[in-house]
Amino acid sequence: MPAMNHSTNKNPMNVTQLPWAFPVGERFSGVQSSPVREILSVLSRGDVISFAGGIPDPDLFAVEEIKAAFDHVLTHQASKALQYASTEGEPALREQAAARMSRQLPTAAEQIQITSGSQEGLYLIGQTLLDAGDVVLVEQPTYLAAVQAFALSGARMVGIPTDEHGVLPDELERLIERHRPKFVYLIPTFQNPTGRCMPAGRRHQVAQILLRTGTALVEDDPYGQLRFSGEPVAPIGTLPGMPARTLLLNSMSKIMAPGLRVGWIRGEGPILRSIAIAKQAVGLQSPVTDQLAVARYLATNDIDQHIRRINTVYKTRRDAMHAELSGILPEGATITNPDGGMFLWARLGNDIDTSRLLPLAVEEGVAFVPGSAFYAHDPDHNTMRLSYVTNSPDVIAEGIQRLSRAIKTYSTRRSPATAH
Amino acid sequence: MPAMNHSTNKNPMNVTQLPWAFPVGERFSGVQSSPVREILSVLSRGDVISFAGGIPDPDLFAVEEIKAAFDHVLTHQASKALQYASTEGEPALREQAAARMSRQLPTAAEQIQITSGSQEGLYLIGQTLLDAGDVVLVEQPTYLAAVQAFALSGARMVGIPTDEHGVLPDELERLIERHRPKFVYLIPTFQNPTGRCMPAGRRHQVAQILLRTGTALVEDDPYGQLRFSGEPVAPIGTLPGMPARTLLLNSMSKIMAPGLRVGWIRGEGPILRSIAIAKQAVGLQSPVTDQLAVARYLATNDIDQHIRRINTVYKTRRDAMHAELSGILPEGATITNPDGGMFLWARLGNDIDTSRLLPLAVEEGVAFVPGSAFYAHDPDHNTMRLSYVTNSPDVIAEGIQRLSRAIKTYSTRRSPATAH
Repeated sequence: MPAMNHSTNKNPMNVTQLPWAFPVGERFSGVQSSPVREILSVLSRGDVISFAGGIPDPDLFAVEEIKAAFDHVLTHQASKALQYASTEGEPALREQAAARMSRQLPTAAEQIQITSGSQEGLYLIGQTLLDAGDVVLVEQPTYLAAVQAFALSGARMVGIPTDEHGVLPDELERLIERHRPKFVYLIPTFQNPTGRCMPAGRRHQVAQILLRTGTALVEDDPYGQLRFSGEPVAPIGTLPGMPARTLLLNSMSKIMAPGLRVGWIRGEGPILRSIAIAKQAVGLQSPVTDQLAVARYLATNDIDQHIRRINTVYKTRRDAMHAELSGILPEGATITNPDGGMFLWARLGNDIDTSRLLPLAVEEGVAFVPGSAFYAHDPDHNTMRLSYVTNSPDVIAEGIQRLSRAIKTYSTRRSPATAH
Repeated sequence: MPAMNHSTNKNPMNVTQLPWAFPVGERFSGVQSSPVREILSVLSRGDVISFAGGIPDPDLFAVEEIKAAFDHVLTHQASKALQYASTEGEPALREQAAARMSRQLPTAAEQIQITSGSQEGLYLIGQTLLDAGDVVLVEQPTYLAAVQAFALSGARMVGIPTDEHGVLPDELERLIERHRPKFVYLIPTFQNPTGRCMPAGRRHQVAQILLRTGTALVEDDPYGQLRFSGEPVAPIGTLPGMPARTLLLNSMSKIMAPGLRVGWIRGEGPILRSIAIAKQAVGLQSPVTDQLAVARYLATNDIDQHIRRINTVYKTRRDAMHAELSGILPEGATITNPDGGMFLWARLGNDIDTSRLLPLAVEEGVAFVPGSAFYAHDPDHNTMRLSYVTNSPDVIAEGIQRLSRAIKTYSTRRSPATAH
């Protein structure tokens, strides 16, 4: 740092010796960094097989097609692609998004707000709807970064108990009556972290409760198209009466490429205007080049075929991980076997705290995310999330063997302590 | 909307007939859309010469070089460019940003947080530092969207009186003592909206006051490199004692292309960690492809030469607009004649309310931004901001003639009313 005795300082003081800390906001001081991102940043430094992040396999990116789309945009639309543009998003991309959404629910381009990934969508919804002290009901467990995004508005998350089909209707209704939440946040299809898919019957029950109680729904659907088996189930937001009170989030991250940061919110009515104003404040608009390139890619490629290719590969990896994991987990452990998405969810039994298991696992050269990170409150410390999408079946097999060794070490170290 | 009498509805009600409105947050309900963005959206529909937006001339985009950078990235770094990445930003871009910043102040790559344009930087700083009820001191007038970004945190803006050299030191000190602001927000170089540049002596006075009172500085410098005449002046944040308590914002929007949404914050110490956590919540990370393409562009092109080319063109436009405007403004009007940046600021005398002039101007086929939009409070209704960067001197001349006709119409219509 430069010395203070600068020739033009008319009032020199020892101010550089005073301690300085920026006055971080109180509201912000309780917000934690994502444990997943923390784990990911550790992993980038070593030779660790990672089941931690929901990281698509880059070998499945349609690189040539994406490159051709960028090339087209920068050859024929450069003046537009490099310029300021509308906050709501590029018309060409909104049209493409509306066309895809319309397979599930009639959607006009004007009902689409383009966002920089679903994450920005969740954040903008939080900014628009939430005041400090408001309650949001979330699944128990749920997607961590959504909690993070909502918490920055000073809102309080209340977890809804779940079973293997998702939120329990009776509990949902009880918690709505008790907390009068601003909205309920659900990931009904191939949920993060559990991989579960809520069946149609349960979805109708949930919709009825939301309609009866006049409650808004924020439905996050980034994984819905990654289905390997079973029949598609319509989003809750498409059920009768629901579209007007649902904000439905989609993303290109899992089916095209996360690095482009392109997602959208589907909504109806004046709420879209409020969300656009929030987006103005947050960053004016999403990058135009990326938006136009994604629109061009969707207009000139059969992304459904691409998605089928991804799903074929991911299915073999899910099968591999489920089989390997079933072979090594201790007695009493349970694992999900989802019909799609990116994650398996395991409960290792009462004896294993997965946060304490993680360092041993990393020592063995494998990583996962301890499940406790995904709970709004009252975490279950015996759970873990494992992503099967990044690695080949061989690497998955090796990683699970490493995990097996870590579990054995954990149990060995634990036993003498227990004996005391 | 689908009918409610759906076969699986066990509890059919007339809920679709109840009015539904999303419960927008109170905190958010006071936030307004940017008048500039509103004007821009009107303009896109007509044959209007616009001096409203700070829109770079797309003919000055280095399209071939930018295209080559994207092509390189998607040919040689596609796996990385399309994937999730770190919240802080791509190392290659942080290195380039640090190298450019280091011309003014020694800066390490770790002291750079990549943002999606300066706007996101301002927003993240607001999220990190501000609680509801906090005060931010801003120039009177100041950059509107910064006020918008800070206001979403529930903070209150207090304007600092200014003269032709920027904020008045005595007023700054008085307002700091009175309001104890979380930070002072300044655009010292070619300010938006006035185009003014604070001289070195005033900068040192401001720095002394901030140091003496232990006040943080948020210094926004998107225009600093657009200098046509005069000598460069160092940012306030580079003066002795200041770097540790300054968050200095830069952007590629004005010197490369705004559509890419690439900017950064330079900071020191733990505050960077807090800002990164806020960015996680807002959108995980900026798009990787764009970041790598900008880094590649900076590594393989002489952007300083490109900036000189921009400045040569902008100088002729500033000259043209200043000359034309000087010829048509009413007696007693004043206009700035800045050494750089994008804007002229005019005060038309007490008789002309520029908000009422605007519809007449648009009728004549020319647009500007009424100056009242840029005041945190106590707006001066007789002011206007005009951007000279988008149009050629001929178009500028035509636009100013249209403005002249609008002013004449305004005065004609006003006179009879006054006579009543």
